[in-house]
Amino acid sequence: MTVNPKHPASPTDAASSAARLIAAEALVRFMREKIPLARSMDVQLSACGSGALSLCAPLAPNANDKGCAFGGSLVSLMTLNGWALVELPLRERGIACDVFVGTSTVRYLAPLWQDFRSEAQLADGSDWADFFTALNARGKAAIEVACSVPNDEGTGPAATLHARFVAKRRS
Amino acid sequence: MTVNPKHPASPTDAASSAARLIAAEALVRFMREKIPLARSMDVQLSACGSGALSLCAPLAPNANDKGCAFGGSLVSLMTLNGWALVELPLRERGIACDVFVGTSTVRYLAPLWQDFRSEAQLADGSDWADFFTALNARGKAAIEVACSVPNDEGTGPAATLHARFVAKRRS
Repeated sequence: MTVNPKHPASPTDAASSAARLIAAEALVRFMREKIPLARSMDVQLSACGSGALSLCAPLAPNANDKGCAFGGSLVSLMTLNGWALVELPLRERGIACDVFVGTSTVRYLAPLWQDFRSEAQLADGSDWADFFTALNARGKAAIEVACSVPNDEGTGPAATLHARFVAKRRS
Repeated sequence: MTVNPKHPASPTDAASSAARLIAAEALVRFMREKIPLARSMDVQLSACGSGALSLCAPLAPNANDKGCAFGGSLVSLMTLNGWALVELPLRERGIACDVFVGTSTVRYLAPLWQDFRSEAQLADGSDWADFFTALNARGKAAIEVACSVPNDEGTGPAATLHARFVAKRRS
């Protein structure tokens, strides 16, 4: 597991990155405990940077009849990844919300013949500040997430997902 | 398991429906054997009509952290359902193809708190005749499928998927 290596960390950055990694590890444990399919897929945390989150899964429990990654596993991993990207900063702030996926568009671009990982970040035009402002004002807010699964060669995406997630404060 | 009840069957219709049901049952067994996630989800055949196919799954292995159906399970069930809708007539005709999902758009409209089923049929504007003509001519053809998962009350969809599947003849 790695943290965002792009910025040499100040002591504060390092503490913040470590806290975020611990929170992300706890979230993946929660996911595996509460969502049986995440456990069946053997979903693991791959990396956790300042604005991105990455999950991974082995091929064997996620293969299809042709021996490559099953489309349902790819979309499930990316959906979990997007959900976790939204859930994580809410948990870090102690805001109790239910986070649901609302819509998603998925593209399957190449077969995957080995273990795979997904990467999630906010979609272009989406913004955490707007999201938290709306959530504070209305108790509900939506945000768009872009996920992708790199191909076996790491030269481009094998699958992408663009999804809209909705967070609602628990009453 | 039921066959399309809309048309009182002639002896030929009845034989054809029975053969299709047997082929659909074999396909679901194949799916459960070859796709571990289909087994983890406990996917079953629900119904098989002349132009539609329906799969079902219990809630327990497909729940999320909130106790309702996990979005990844819904999209996986609908993706399997669409794949099976395309795979079935190919198998019935003895055409050896690999069938892949290419793109899909998913809408999650309501939470589901009980066992659920999906229904798949060709999307408006898609046509088996065009699909088989293209497949014969080029060894490859695409077709659009519409799937939905009815809500708990059966009054409308809880989730929908519109997907494009591609079939390629195996060389």
